[in-house]
Amino acid sequence: MEGKWRWIIEWLTPEDAHLWHIKKIIFQGETEFQKVDIIETRFGKHLLLDGKTQSTEKDEYIYHEALVHPIMFTHPDPRKILILGGGEGATLREVLKHKTVTHITMVDIDKKLIELCQQYLYEWHRGSFQDPKVKLKFTDGRRFLEEEEDSQYDVIILDLTDPTRDSPSARLYTKEFYTLVFKTLKDDGMMVTQATSVRYTTDVFATLYKTIKTVFPIARAYGVFVPAFLSDWGFVIGSKKYDPLQIDRNVLKKRIEARLNGELKYYDEDLHYALFIFGKDIKEVLKKTHRVSTDNDPVYMPI
Amino acid sequence: MEGKWRWIIEWLTPEDAHLWHIKKIIFQGETEFQKVDIIETRFGKHLLLDGKTQSTEKDEYIYHEALVHPIMFTHPDPRKILILGGGEGATLREVLKHKTVTHITMVDIDKKLIELCQQYLYEWHRGSFQDPKVKLKFTDGRRFLEEEEDSQYDVIILDLTDPTRDSPSARLYTKEFYTLVFKTLKDDGMMVTQATSVRYTTDVFATLYKTIKTVFPIARAYGVFVPAFLSDWGFVIGSKKYDPLQIDRNVLKKRIEARLNGELKYYDEDLHYALFIFGKDIKEVLKKTHRVSTDNDPVYMPI
Amino acid sequence: MEGKWRWIIEWLTPEDAHLWHIKKIIFQGETEFQKVDIIETRFGKHLLLDGKTQSTEKDEYIYHEALVHPIMFTHPDPRKILILGGGEGATLREVLKHKTVTHITMVDIDKKLIELCQQYLYEWHRGSFQDPKVKLKFTDGRRFLEEEEDSQYDVIILDLTDPTRDSPSARLYTKEFYTLVFKTLKDDGMMVTQATSVRYTTDVFATLYKTIKTVFPIARAYGVFVPAFLSDWGFVIGSKKYDPLQIDRNVLKKRIEARLNGELKYYDEDLHYALFIFGKDIKEVLKKTHRVSTDNDPVYMPI
Amino acid sequence: MEGKWRWIIEWLTPEDAHLWHIKKIIFQGETEFQKVDIIETRFGKHLLLDGKTQSTEKDEYIYHEALVHPIMFTHPDPRKILILGGGEGATLREVLKHKTVTHITMVDIDKKLIELCQQYLYEWHRGSFQDPKVKLKFTDGRRFLEEEEDSQYDVIILDLTDPTRDSPSARLYTKEFYTLVFKTLKDDGMMVTQATSVRYTTDVFATLYKTIKTVFPIARAYGVFVPAFLSDWGFVIGSKKYDPLQIDRNVLKKRIEARLNGELKYYDEDLHYALFIFGKDIKEVLKKTHRVSTDNDPVYMPI
Repeated sequence: MEGKWRWIIEWLTPEDAHLWHIKKIIFQGETEFQKVDIIETRFGKHLLLDGKTQSTEKDEYIYHEALVHPIMFTHPDPRKILILGGGEGATLREVLKHKTVTHITMVDIDKKLIELCQQYLYEWHRGSFQDPKVKLKFTDGRRFLEEEEDSQYDVIILDLTDPTRDSPSARLYTKEFYTLVFKTLKDDGMMVTQATSVRYTTDVFATLYKTIKTVFPIARAYGVFVPAFLSDWGFVIGSKKYDPLQIDRNVLKKRIEARLNGELKYYDEDLHYALFIFGKDIKEVLKKTHRVSTDNDPVYMPI
Repeated sequence: MEGKWRWIIEWLTPEDAHLWHIKKIIFQGETEFQKVDIIETRFGKHLLLDGKTQSTEKDEYIYHEALVHPIMFTHPDPRKILILGGGEGATLREVLKHKTVTHITMVDIDKKLIELCQQYLYEWHRGSFQDPKVKLKFTDGRRFLEEEEDSQYDVIILDLTDPTRDSPSARLYTKEFYTLVFKTLKDDGMMVTQATSVRYTTDVFATLYKTIKTVFPIARAYGVFVPAFLSDWGFVIGSKKYDPLQIDRNVLKKRIEARLNGELKYYDEDLHYALFIFGKDIKEVLKKTHRVSTDNDPVYMPI
Repeated sequence: MEGKWRWIIEWLTPEDAHLWHIKKIIFQGETEFQKVDIIETRFGKHLLLDGKTQSTEKDEYIYHEALVHPIMFTHPDPRKILILGGGEGATLREVLKHKTVTHITMVDIDKKLIELCQQYLYEWHRGSFQDPKVKLKFTDGRRFLEEEEDSQYDVIILDLTDPTRDSPSARLYTKEFYTLVFKTLKDDGMMVTQATSVRYTTDVFATLYKTIKTVFPIARAYGVFVPAFLSDWGFVIGSKKYDPLQIDRNVLKKRIEARLNGELKYYDEDLHYALFIFGKDIKEVLKKTHRVSTDNDPVYMPI
Repeated sequence: MEGKWRWIIEWLTPEDAHLWHIKKIIFQGETEFQKVDIIETRFGKHLLLDGKTQSTEKDEYIYHEALVHPIMFTHPDPRKILILGGGEGATLREVLKHKTVTHITMVDIDKKLIELCQQYLYEWHRGSFQDPKVKLKFTDGRRFLEEEEDSQYDVIILDLTDPTRDSPSARLYTKEFYTLVFKTLKDDGMMVTQATSVRYTTDVFATLYKTIKTVFPIARAYGVFVPAFLSDWGFVIGSKKYDPLQIDRNVLKKRIEARLNGELKYYDEDLHYALFIFGKDIKEVLKKTHRVSTDNDPVYMPI
């Protein structure tokens, strides 16, 4: 311990925090929008924005595969994809594993962050930013959607930072925003969003689930344990037509085999269904929560 | 922060640790076998042995229901139960929810720890130690089994501290020990053990799985996220006859309804199957690990 | 490090703190007035009140000798002594080393704290509470002085906790209070108070010096490094007649020899003068500070 | 606290450490010889080498004035000065305040460190490296002295990192080394070295004092509280002829006035004498320690 003096103290609540030893500093600085730490910890390369772990080299595949593949493999033919956020380029990387995909638009407000990720996080993006199918836009995600024509996308993936009080992401978790997303999706389109921690902020997770349920005919919440988050992480799918729980296991298995361009390290046809199953306690909260996040009364992270 | 000065620093590896603010000190001291902290943190009452979180008031039901019910509901008629460890009395409490049960023997080496739990952890045991079906023995679990006659128990539950290098528990995770357990079980008996962290110590978890697989015809590994452990936690079932994955969902549902004496907060017939499904990465490690833990070469926790 | 999980984090400012490993817990609890930690750290037994280090077994003699002996040896014949605060009994112990002393009244608001100190901190008080010259009163120091007749004491020693915003001590650091002290002293009486950190809270230290200077004809500020405080500690003497800087070194040397009952570990006739000498920077602040702490506008610690 | 995630944990012993919040990162990297952190903490700019605080913007003047002026003002006519170490350039800055000085040679093994200090620590060096009287050499200090002719310098100032086990500085604290220093000094020459913490490592401090006493006819130990070191810091002067305690106060006062080129913030003719006065406890250790640090058996810091 005595030979280790550089640390990150990541606060989970005012009453507990995690100590990460910084083995190596790769980049510490800030963009117009957030403070960036790219360091090396026991999880390998480790990205924090405003002091919050975003993803790490050793386990980012869990988060990114869980975000991308349940929705993408539920959709029978996802061609045109929109990603909001996802600066590390790993969401892009996973989307590009689907042979059906012809166009990906990725929108991030923070150009400098994308440049930092391109420069320092090759293990995440694997050169995906250079793929000819990919178009990058540097603007606010909500404004982008407001100016976009209707019925454009098969799949929209919201890979955003958490809705903290002062974050630019806060307006990307409300009913009004999801209504915009709905409009911009094709008639059989689907969306997925990261939805904060299942257990640390269960009420935020449940509120996002209920909010999406008011906008989309089908809404499905799921979660996965991400080691570097020290927590199971939540996601919510909103869908106009396809239900991830209604797809037949054999159809799904064959679809994965036929469509996959590259390897999966985490997701498969067995995991697909298990992801959506919670214990009685979480099921209860999801059922009993009736709060809807709106522009006037948005849901925020407690810390 | 300035008004908070009493903290636990729980080391997960030499390169990361968790900071727990101590809201209240309930008991700090030691027994003949281990150092005991019973404090109040953001998880409510919080028990640590030798500086490692054992369970907390707010989420102990997750660990204890996941330990007890998959095996108990897989067994069609569990009457005579043996628990090794489980000092908090919560494993006892969950076992007592099965109406079939007629005898429970609980063996723990640490009498003083049991007394502390009886005194301070009512939320865990709920008076279970006083149930007439329960017999307590204070002795080493391995010695107890060596002196026990064959074919005694329907179910044996191993709720032990982790196999660290100097812990009295280390000899309760080897092939020789599981062979003893096998002998003491009836012809259709089953055992389950906690099996350390699925992701922090995957190789220990996989080794325990493989070790039990060499002794029992049926071995099943599963895991569950326990918030206060900051990790998903592993368990392994060894069984002579009944397979938790072969029981029909409707049979299981009816069995739960018929047998249950009390309420479940976490486990149900949907979760049962999902618990056993891992991502591709963990499946791979479980498949590729061939190490068997033996008395001569036991598996240990790295920290 | 991994085997050390119980820690105190003592905040010095919101931007730095000290981590103390708790080797042993002797007592942690609270009285009517404050939270008490009596633990063992690398400084031996270690007393904290409300999370602030008060004194430690290994270096308490530095603080207590520096508090007591400069004033006591400056006074030619101190007989009747009043101590406010000083719960550990070490101030008492040092005062009792002066053969001239016939009566000591010690006033502390916190009876339970005194009992804890008597029980656990023998190394501090060395049985001094039982000395027949000592009279203990459990009441508020300010009220005690208000009810006391004039011109009672040769020496008054203020060994109080810091003037933090909500502390009962805050009213014992104002001009009105020192005026009470003045009245209760004999015509050649003297007082001394601990006066917070010389360098962490120089303005508080300087304000107390200036406040005492408005009440007493002679005021002298001095300081000493106390290792467990991680800082040099300040004191201020107020005197009606005798000046600690005017006493001749040989007179002082002989007085110490003649009067001393017991041993000194820190103070001697050389140190006496050096204590009062500050660097140019502190001298400057002492000169330029004009603030006076009053009941209406008392000086507080920033944290 | 929650908005503060970048911290230095500076270990003082294995049982206590200081937490410094990093307000700003100026430089973190390494040279051939050591790891360098130049950050901003509550002490302003803050330099650490290998995780140990070297000096800070807010209080470096205390250390550097205490290192340089007692010896320089004791010497009646210091012209030719050698500095070993002192990478920040603040020792240089203080030496240049003496009008008598005509030549300064500064020797540091770590060229890159000097460049970093020149670039980032202007508040320390104030451009002193560019003074025409200054000559910089990048080599090992001991080798430099071995190759230097005898009787060259009036004053030699050793501003080195602590003698930790693997540090290049360890060989610059032994009897053999001080003998080299002696040889290189003129017949009335003087040396001073920083001598570790007075109270954290009293035995190292006392050993250095005794070692220098075996080489020089006059040896004087002194100390000063440096806030950012959380400790009083020790120094030892070795002198062939002049004794800092024998100089008359009025002579000293006039010498300061006549010779000074610039301002002092800490040192003056009153402080000069007080610096050398310790409490009885430290005096005792200085008297009773007989260990001499030699090349065969050098003294090391415990951590």
